[in-house]
Amino acid sequence: MAILRIENAQIITMADGDATLHECWTLEAVDGAITYVGPSEGLQSAAEPDERIDGSDCLLLPGFVNAHTHAAMTLFRGSADDMPLEPWLHEKIWPIEAKLTADDVYWGTLLGCAEMLRAGVTCFNDMYHLPREGTRAAMDCGIRMCPAGVLLGIVPNAEDMFEEALAFTREFARRDDLCIHPMLAPHAPYTVPRELMERVIGAAQEIGVAIHIHLAETADNVATAMKTYGATPIQAMDGIGLFEAKVLGAHCVHLSDRDIEIIAQKHVGVAHCPGSNLKLASGIARTRDLLATGAHVGLGTDGSGSNNNLDLLEEARLAALIAKVSTGDPTAVPAEAALEMATLGGARAIFLDYCVGSLEPGKRCDCILVDLDAPHLQPRHCLSSHMIYSAQASDVKTTIVDGKVLMRDRELLTIDLPETYAKVGESVERLFG
Amino acid sequence: MAILRIENAQIITMADGDATLHECWTLEAVDGAITYVGPSEGLQSAAEPDERIDGSDCLLLPGFVNAHTHAAMTLFRGSADDMPLEPWLHEKIWPIEAKLTADDVYWGTLLGCAEMLRAGVTCFNDMYHLPREGTRAAMDCGIRMCPAGVLLGIVPNAEDMFEEALAFTREFARRDDLCIHPMLAPHAPYTVPRELMERVIGAAQEIGVAIHIHLAETADNVATAMKTYGATPIQAMDGIGLFEAKVLGAHCVHLSDRDIEIIAQKHVGVAHCPGSNLKLASGIARTRDLLATGAHVGLGTDGSGSNNNLDLLEEARLAALIAKVSTGDPTAVPAEAALEMATLGGARAIFLDYCVGSLEPGKRCDCILVDLDAPHLQPRHCLSSHMIYSAQASDVKTTIVDGKVLMRDRELLTIDLPETYAKVGESVERLFG
Repeated sequence: MAILRIENAQIITMADGDATLHECWTLEAVDGAITYVGPSEGLQSAAEPDERIDGSDCLLLPGFVNAHTHAAMTLFRGSADDMPLEPWLHEKIWPIEAKLTADDVYWGTLLGCAEMLRAGVTCFNDMYHLPREGTRAAMDCGIRMCPAGVLLGIVPNAEDMFEEALAFTREFARRDDLCIHPMLAPHAPYTVPRELMERVIGAAQEIGVAIHIHLAETADNVATAMKTYGATPIQAMDGIGLFEAKVLGAHCVHLSDRDIEIIAQKHVGVAHCPGSNLKLASGIARTRDLLATGAHVGLGTDGSGSNNNLDLLEEARLAALIAKVSTGDPTAVPAEAALEMATLGGARAIFLDYCVGSLEPGKRCDCILVDLDAPHLQPRHCLSSHMIYSAQASDVKTTIVDGKVLMRDRELLTIDLPETYAKVGESVERLFG
Repeated sequence: MAILRIENAQIITMADGDATLHECWTLEAVDGAITYVGPSEGLQSAAEPDERIDGSDCLLLPGFVNAHTHAAMTLFRGSADDMPLEPWLHEKIWPIEAKLTADDVYWGTLLGCAEMLRAGVTCFNDMYHLPREGTRAAMDCGIRMCPAGVLLGIVPNAEDMFEEALAFTREFARRDDLCIHPMLAPHAPYTVPRELMERVIGAAQEIGVAIHIHLAETADNVATAMKTYGATPIQAMDGIGLFEAKVLGAHCVHLSDRDIEIIAQKHVGVAHCPGSNLKLASGIARTRDLLATGAHVGLGTDGSGSNNNLDLLEEARLAALIAKVSTGDPTAVPAEAALEMATLGGARAIFLDYCVGSLEPGKRCDCILVDLDAPHLQPRHCLSSHMIYSAQASDVKTTIVDGKVLMRDRELLTIDLPETYAKVGESVERLFG
């Protein structure tokens, strides 16, 4: 029995979305499951913890949930910026992706995991090629992951991709690993034809996993769906039964009022990706309207090719800021709502709120300690405001996943950074050299 | 004679706005003035430096220029967020500002200086009450500052404010301190009536200092100017001769094509403040159009009441991102342009490019070393892209102003942080308690 105890921290639990600050609380976890969160003096446990962490002058939060990324795309960071989408994809991204090996995906994902753990991300929802390799990287370092092999219907090897992804997802669904939660990932309505999409829906329901898909990212996506289906991407996918499965829609930028109703009614999770949407000039999502319906909205970094980092706290800040300017309403998406999107909202959106997203007895212990000893976090008027409007990813001091300390005092305990940099360097040399 | 030498760094000089990366270069400064920037093997100097810094695995850049802030407003950080502008000012900010003492402004500014030095900001353009106190804080820690006492024409003590600000500015203009560059700061066209504005213009020209003023921040500002002057704020101020003086206009969000022409023709400096403009829902400035005319555009954080940090690198990222989404053009304001705004552009906008903003022999030595040993800065496809789209303020390792090291390995050498936090705490207790 492994006991972890974090003592005398300031804690925001986010239970039921509540961002209230509790002073001098303690959290205890046994074998990775939270057993106590409350006033330090209320803890009844007499057992000596295996790991005891002093939370003084720290803020304890649920770990951040990155609800949409392609982690191995760290390999592309800074390789092609400030370009229009089509030439970016066709000339820069896809030709290199065609050359990716297992090693490239493993080390690229591990680099992404290193960056995420250092930024307080304890769980990420991933869609990429060679998902076994990315999953191996996550398992090696201990981060929580929802892996899925990307499915494209418009390529010659579409059927092989589908079979491989299905085999992978079946295998990991059976394993029931506490930290690996597989999904199926048809890329998007415009790249996966109806017949294949229907097979994916059936497979997801049969295996009992969720579906991870890009939805309504660009105005062009909407135009294509109107041409193909005579409906918006959301209404087209609703029409063919996609939302009878559990679905996480990435982006959801261009939505009609009716689309938003469907998303709320069908409990479609949304991964809002403000950084990527701004950088690619895709548009500004209607986050305020989505949240008003009670829709489950989380945040995603997207891949490092279009962001260019995996800093979820930056996404939370962007989400709060652009909601205000795009609605003309400075009260839209306040700090507490942004903090909820970064944690419990993301967990809900990827259907993991039964086990993570808030600090409550019974949930798995995914949490972070934020070091408050920094000029930009002074004075202490409001810590939830400070997290969203002033903090940096580097203020995260300690990152814990499933009760295990993976970063302590900014030092990663399960990833060898020099080795990772060297291996990534070799991949980049071969792919881009 | 004090010699500083930074050896074997990767250097982006930003000379003439050039963001080219030079590998293994060395910079030398003598008594605060840069004497050499070039290949390490080309340095002829035989003298042993007083301070020798190893730049390996670091990127050496000009220090960031914060072209518009109210540094002492760190006191307000997180005290009132997610509110509409008018109640925010009238209920939250102004009643507290009316109670500010000399100590409050000194310690609030010093906290801001600490935060800025840690974020690589080597120079800031400030507009606030009790400017002697803010200036004392800057001089005590060694950061470069353009101080100015805010002038309001719509308050009972307007004449006293003007006389005091004038005396302050005259005194510091005479002192000719290498790091303190005073200005005059009429708050805005809507708060300073024409007659007072004309006296400020005359005084600025007579003393030989620049003017720091808020211009066209909100749509409401434009409506007010149309009512008062029958013209946009820019055209109204042009009409009364403001731009015959050297002028830094903060914000400049709501501009007509003609306004942009005037700004370019009259060499009005612009402090683009994206974080504040988004958070207060003021709007998105036409940065791409301004830059296309060759206008001098820098970046400002604005005060911590509406940002809420003093992280200029975040402003640079926001500037690049929102220019893209607001124009629908992903090529708008590329990384290099954002990096220029954060450095040389800011120096030009506040009329200090004769002495800072780029690393060139003859200029004062304001520079920063960025630690490249971080997962989010791997792999090394393009360092100017990494600075804008992936780096964090905390990646700044060393900050040097006027040839003096003010932060080394993240440790501030001229500011006692615990004392500053304690004094700020006392102020906050008294002001808000």
